[in-house]
Amino acid sequence: MAEQVATNITWHDGEVTQEERQKNLGQKGCTLWMTGLSGSGKSTVAVALEQVLIQRGHHAYRLDGDNVRHGLNKNLGFSAEDRAENIRRIGEVAKLFADAGLVTITSFISPYAADRDNVRELHAAGELPFIEVYVDCTLEEAEKRDPKGLYKKARAGEIKGFTGIDDPYEEPANAEIHIKTHEMSVEESVQTLLDELAKRGIISA
Amino acid sequence: MAEQVATNITWHDGEVTQEERQKNLGQKGCTLWMTGLSGSGKSTVAVALEQVLIQRGHHAYRLDGDNVRHGLNKNLGFSAEDRAENIRRIGEVAKLFADAGLVTITSFISPYAADRDNVRELHAAGELPFIEVYVDCTLEEAEKRDPKGLYKKARAGEIKGFTGIDDPYEEPANAEIHIKTHEMSVEESVQTLLDELAKRGIISA
Repeated sequence: MAEQVATNITWHDGEVTQEERQKNLGQKGCTLWMTGLSGSGKSTVAVALEQVLIQRGHHAYRLDGDNVRHGLNKNLGFSAEDRAENIRRIGEVAKLFADAGLVTITSFISPYAADRDNVRELHAAGELPFIEVYVDCTLEEAEKRDPKGLYKKARAGEIKGFTGIDDPYEEPANAEIHIKTHEMSVEESVQTLLDELAKRGIISA
Repeated sequence: MAEQVATNITWHDGEVTQEERQKNLGQKGCTLWMTGLSGSGKSTVAVALEQVLIQRGHHAYRLDGDNVRHGLNKNLGFSAEDRAENIRRIGEVAKLFADAGLVTITSFISPYAADRDNVRELHAAGELPFIEVYVDCTLEEAEKRDPKGLYKKARAGEIKGFTGIDDPYEEPANAEIHIKTHEMSVEESVQTLLDELAKRGIISA
């Protein structure tokens, strides 16, 4: 029998479909958009959630200040215009990650409702799930935690326009998930998010 | 025996490690940076490669004009400054995707060597593989193909600063891969890239 030489390289016109990606990854892509005061616990919950998802064989990635502010958005400052552009870019990148099939977890204060709503609309236009997660904690508690010493600096006037002190935090009116980190443990918070992902069929239960 | 109730939610300090991601995905992340004239075949090869990778159970994502120029970079024009910023942002996003463990395929003319070198350095700083792919085709051939009718418009003066006509294309001096699309089929081009990914241990052979 003659040996058959075949490259097995075949493709179809157009994009990889969402069905092909989902079959390959065993999950759907989405964006979990965490919003809340500095010190509210966004990063703690986001880090734990990402790890648990990956332990369980899911595909997740976290966008936060460390990998975005010093990279993609390093040419932005803290003017009103730059803050809006900061969130716009993060929203666009989260949308790309969700489109790629990942559970995308963003962890930014994102204090303005209009900016968050723009990101929600971006995802809706791409038919990608957007889950707003209000990481809620009283200002008093966040200021007591003050893990980076930023509230102290803001109170001393060394930082201007600090959310909660001299710049507003606009509470989400319609967040899909409301986590109260002064009442819930990290485990409970992560479980709440896992349950939501399963309920929506993004990951298997 | 008492039933044990456990959430199985455990995590460690700090980031998900690259080892954890690689184990989960069965591959390493990288960026395949395709550069070449309009009409050289970048998108054709990129689309086919992404599909073949996904058919084979790998995780890949393509960044191109369609999902970047109309999204993340929609507020950029075609001035020298905006062109550089366009490539910088794409480079930063590719780096995030590579960090997330995906085979990231970018498909942009990216005519200036300095801009491409900046993206290479970004990846080196993050210890992420960067593979520059020169999608090479003679200007004569690219102009004959002219799939979007852009060369015709550039020759008629309707588009200014068009790469290859009145703006330079700086050929890569040290591209890891050199694909000559006027001599190689799409299958051969894709196979060349798959071989390179396997050789580097990014995907299994």
